[in-house]
Amino acid sequence: MNPIITSLLDMDFYKFTMGQFAFLRYPKIRVKYAFKNRTKGIRLARAIDLEAIREQLNHVRTLRPTKSELHYLRGTNEYQDRMFVEPYLEFFANLQMSDFQLYADKEGNIVLEFEGNWSEVIYWETLALSIINELYFQSLMKNASRFQKETLFSEGKIRLARKISLLKQHPLITFTDFGTRRRFSRDWQRYVVEVLAEEMPGQFIGTSNTKLAMDFGLLPMGTSAHELDMVMSGVMHGSDDEIRESHQKMLREWWDLYGQGLSIALTDTYGTDFFFRDFTVDQARQWKGLRQDSGDPIAFGEKAIEYYKGKWANPKEKLLIFSDGLDTETIIKIFKHFHDRIKVSFGWGTNLTNDLRLIALSLVVKVTESNGHGTVKLSDNLAKAMGRPEDVERFKRIFGYTGAEYTECKV
Amino acid sequence: MNPIITSLLDMDFYKFTMGQFAFLRYPKIRVKYAFKNRTKGIRLARAIDLEAIREQLNHVRTLRPTKSELHYLRGTNEYQDRMFVEPYLEFFANLQMSDFQLYADKEGNIVLEFEGNWSEVIYWETLALSIINELYFQSLMKNASRFQKETLFSEGKIRLARKISLLKQHPLITFTDFGTRRRFSRDWQRYVVEVLAEEMPGQFIGTSNTKLAMDFGLLPMGTSAHELDMVMSGVMHGSDDEIRESHQKMLREWWDLYGQGLSIALTDTYGTDFFFRDFTVDQARQWKGLRQDSGDPIAFGEKAIEYYKGKWANPKEKLLIFSDGLDTETIIKIFKHFHDRIKVSFGWGTNLTNDLRLIALSLVVKVTESNGHGTVKLSDNLAKAMGRPEDVERFKRIFGYTGAEYTECKV
Repeated sequence: MNPIITSLLDMDFYKFTMGQFAFLRYPKIRVKYAFKNRTKGIRLARAIDLEAIREQLNHVRTLRPTKSELHYLRGTNEYQDRMFVEPYLEFFANLQMSDFQLYADKEGNIVLEFEGNWSEVIYWETLALSIINELYFQSLMKNASRFQKETLFSEGKIRLARKISLLKQHPLITFTDFGTRRRFSRDWQRYVVEVLAEEMPGQFIGTSNTKLAMDFGLLPMGTSAHELDMVMSGVMHGSDDEIRESHQKMLREWWDLYGQGLSIALTDTYGTDFFFRDFTVDQARQWKGLRQDSGDPIAFGEKAIEYYKGKWANPKEKLLIFSDGLDTETIIKIFKHFHDRIKVSFGWGTNLTNDLRLIALSLVVKVTESNGHGTVKLSDNLAKAMGRPEDVERFKRIFGYTGAEYTECKV
Repeated sequence: MNPIITSLLDMDFYKFTMGQFAFLRYPKIRVKYAFKNRTKGIRLARAIDLEAIREQLNHVRTLRPTKSELHYLRGTNEYQDRMFVEPYLEFFANLQMSDFQLYADKEGNIVLEFEGNWSEVIYWETLALSIINELYFQSLMKNASRFQKETLFSEGKIRLARKISLLKQHPLITFTDFGTRRRFSRDWQRYVVEVLAEEMPGQFIGTSNTKLAMDFGLLPMGTSAHELDMVMSGVMHGSDDEIRESHQKMLREWWDLYGQGLSIALTDTYGTDFFFRDFTVDQARQWKGLRQDSGDPIAFGEKAIEYYKGKWANPKEKLLIFSDGLDTETIIKIFKHFHDRIKVSFGWGTNLTNDLRLIALSLVVKVTESNGHGTVKLSDNLAKAMGRPEDVERFKRIFGYTGAEYTECKV
């Protein structure tokens, strides 16, 4: 077995910021995460050997952060001085990654679930996704000759060169690698990140991959994920009002812990319209900006500008981070549309770290239960919605969700 | 200095077959070879540092064949049992490569000349060409970033993959690497040859590069060059008849030395029309075939088929080797046109070993003097003609040359 994950820092940085939040505030909240393949027509359990996944996941459970990795986390001051507190670092240093459930259902889907204390199981998300992606692409290339494999990487390099060349024509565009979860392979993400760091240091401003940030001296980047809202809905679960208020409670607690440093709000858990109704005047002025992760990015940006103007906040001082299914063309289009009206940057995932010639998958690991309750994500694109049907209906009502967009998830 | 040539076998195999011919028959004939750049508009001495060329050439002069390399030559039996005789191997084992003249003329052209006994200076041709080509492409890439260089090789791999994929659709097409003299670099030719050997062993039947043939266990391939005719014209120099007869004399002596094994005749030194007038009925029937190196390949093939029919030789038993500026499309076109009427194969040079994204050069090293007389090559394309104008005019008359084609040399 050739281990895919060889470092516990080979995961998205937001797992640590959210992980510390979970550790400090809700360490014993019971949660369940589940793997989901959003790409239709691919029966993953028939493409990938389940035992190979099991071996890889079990290997992750043998890992512990090294001293240098802990030093790196301790030394992180990009967002807030010594943002990781000593009790958390000690907890993470000794963390035994939780066990998991893995089997194939009758339709050939992979069922993979992680259950336990939020503070402990939170780390599986990107690790599991990196593993399943890499095993899938290994399986596609199983019968390829050495040269056919090289040709694939050559194609990837040509495509990367094209991205660099086009983006250099817009030197004010900045972006971040968000591709750990969807990467073709660990080595390919590393290659892409190293090339970008060398070729366009002024525009490529960081990576969500903590290990790559550490190894190449890049900015470790991350905001937060839907799971914050979703777990909090379980914590506060009860009446409609309690559930609705869980969103605002999460925003306040996140701000209390990290202040301005990590104040990029993810807007679409329950639909962006609700978000803008819920986000207060003070938050509009204090928080650095917003992350767009579903729906129409241009419509979103226009809404955000209107929203800020309505709160007497200057949009030009606010930052929108776009992270939904980007490619070079959409990045340039969004940048051109907004750049003189509001700050924009891009969190580029699948199409950055998995653009060779093979079609990428749309895989996610999402929290499905929190504190004994089913969780819900509505999203601005119903193809990305998650939750039990009855819960989804209730949450739509609670959050006044009226969105109707349904766009198949390509990435 | 990073030596480009690290082995005296890193040259075309025909230098050894012709080298033995020179050694056994005309060891003391004085000849002069000159480098020529046929690509218009490129002032090579301004692109390449002359001292770098000098260093590389001087490094070649320090080389001697290794014991294993001599074993390899001694063991060559693909064309004739023990085709290299012991005195020749001993001569080559101790050969000190001759000195050279190197300077830049006022127009910025490189002047590079080799003068001495034919048996000794014959070896410089492909060595010098490999060196100048590689230094030229190094100079083009001088300011490229590491990734830009990688992108170039990626482009080369994609183009190579396309060649392989197209040629595999015609599994009866066979071809040989003839690209030593025009290669982008030593390492790139090695890469291309290794890939072809792995990916299409049934169609890629050998390489002209003796070292690569040895290292990868491939067939060392080669026929003969214009220099045989050209040197012989000097040996026989005198009346028009004597010069005209030098062509037939060379054919006979070559046959006497190597028999059927190396009986592929190069037809265009003095124009293919003369060749067909000069080549006898016995030769038509005995010799394996012909090599086409200039002019229209389809017209040539048609002429050859007519010629063979006229001599009561069966074209289906004859082999045409095409080697003039081939690419995938021309190979397929020529193959489709002829394959059921006469055997065809291809000696693929520039476009095989130097198809990245940079424009290749048309460089040659040709014999210009033999035995005190100017030599002439007419060719079926006057853009490839060589010789002093007055000599060219005389040779045209002697050989009844009426060709008028002039097509710029791209490769």
